[in-house]
Amino acid sequence: MRLPLHTRYSDYDSKGHVNNAAYLTYFEIARAAAWVELLGESPDFPFVVASAAVRFVTPARLGEALDVEVEGGEVRTKAWVWHYRVRERGSGRVVAEGETTQVMYDYAAGASVPIPAGLRPRLALAPDRPAGG
Amino acid sequence: MRLPLHTRYSDYDSKGHVNNAAYLTYFEIARAAAWVELLGESPDFPFVVASAAVRFVTPARLGEALDVEVEGGEVRTKAWVWHYRVRERGSGRVVAEGETTQVMYDYAAGASVPIPAGLRPRLALAPDRPAGG
Amino acid sequence: MRLPLHTRYSDYDSKGHVNNAAYLTYFEIARAAAWVELLGESPDFPFVVASAAVRFVTPARLGEALDVEVEGGEVRTKAWVWHYRVRERGSGRVVAEGETTQVMYDYAAGASVPIPAGLRPRLALAPDRPAGG
Amino acid sequence: MRLPLHTRYSDYDSKGHVNNAAYLTYFEIARAAAWVELLGESPDFPFVVASAAVRFVTPARLGEALDVEVEGGEVRTKAWVWHYRVRERGSGRVVAEGETTQVMYDYAAGASVPIPAGLRPRLALAPDRPAGG
Repeated sequence: MRLPLHTRYSDYDSKGHVNNAAYLTYFEIARAAAWVELLGESPDFPFVVASAAVRFVTPARLGEALDVEVEGGEVRTKAWVWHYRVRERGSGRVVAEGETTQVMYDYAAGASVPIPAGLRPRLALAPDRPAGG
Repeated sequence: MRLPLHTRYSDYDSKGHVNNAAYLTYFEIARAAAWVELLGESPDFPFVVASAAVRFVTPARLGEALDVEVEGGEVRTKAWVWHYRVRERGSGRVVAEGETTQVMYDYAAGASVPIPAGLRPRLALAPDRPAGG
Repeated sequence: MRLPLHTRYSDYDSKGHVNNAAYLTYFEIARAAAWVELLGESPDFPFVVASAAVRFVTPARLGEALDVEVEGGEVRTKAWVWHYRVRERGSGRVVAEGETTQVMYDYAAGASVPIPAGLRPRLALAPDRPAGG
Repeated sequence: MRLPLHTRYSDYDSKGHVNNAAYLTYFEIARAAAWVELLGESPDFPFVVASAAVRFVTPARLGEALDVEVEGGEVRTKAWVWHYRVRERGSGRVVAEGETTQVMYDYAAGASVPIPAGLRPRLALAPDRPAGG
């Protein structure tokens, strides 16, 4: 899944580059879009983010249009990985990439829980795979 | 009440100045400190911010230490005004100033409510005025 | 000019409402769009923001889609006013409104300058008014 | 090196927890303090951040005071690693931990450069090691 990022002037630091912390926000934008728009799940996210990693490949400068991509990764019993890549729109140049691990969470019980069976295959975010299939 | 601001690198924009939106966050820091530390009230704020205004007097540059001051203003039946001033610490130069209006709010009832009588005089934030007096 | 806002999960505070400081960022997004997309001017903004004001009319909650509008206001010799209104998209409900005053600025000279004559009428942002007219 | 974090109300998301992206900002605060205050180097950072990783161990809730620690890690020819840990102040509970890799950078030349010999041992941030030793 690829979507346009709407960067904000306040995302850029005094060197005119997107600040490093903003990339976790960009990953969060992609994660929410994948969860709500692609999977059709509730914006009341029933998971927590357990870890995140980012590689800053090339700086993103003011005036450059950016896209973010999200792809499925490993799916474990209670947790799964999503990969992200931020690209400059015109050239496709990679700006940053990384991944986050999510853990399915029951907020009422205050405990991690297994990923529902029907959700597991869909977390691959594969466009050609039938939902639930 | 005056307190030191702990500015963050991400507060500065590509011109090397504190971004204009950050000043409302600085006012919020001062408001929370006045409410919790000076007045001894709960951080579960029982009010909403109804309006805010900022005048950007001189730019704050990277490396400058900043302080924020908060002072009491008009107190009405349900609402009150607090004034803020951000200064460069060494010179006292005014960087920005402004005010916010708060409305006492009952979140359970979803309605504005009168300011409690015991709180009214303390909202002046006057250091030499006896609390509740 | 009206444009869709792309709110971020991190814009919302612990009450599930858009944090008050985020509205100055939303105004900045509208200001940049008006300057660059509507007026066709450079993203290397030749002005400074001198003041800003916001009235918080109704809270914006998680899951609500928001739009921001920007309209022209008073144009003085060196400064001009733009008005903003943030609305919930479906109902048109006003969430927040306010204005900012911009001062034309020569960064090389470090001084405010008069608004160029050709730019003045266009700052009204009137869609039916001929550019430069 | 350990320093108090000054969290902001806007760091907390709608679940009342510090938003995940804020931790990279907290690491940046610690990195800047280590660079400027501990090493006595210029705030005009001559390095870029090449990568970052965070493990979110326990949520940080509104009202909890937080500290951040930074420690030296591997030092390579042009790059070095710093480790971070965010703790709840009263209990010492670990909230988050992670690391960033910095690459020495010559902004004028637009290229990575070797870490100066005199700086290398000091990047360990060891309090008992003589500077330059």
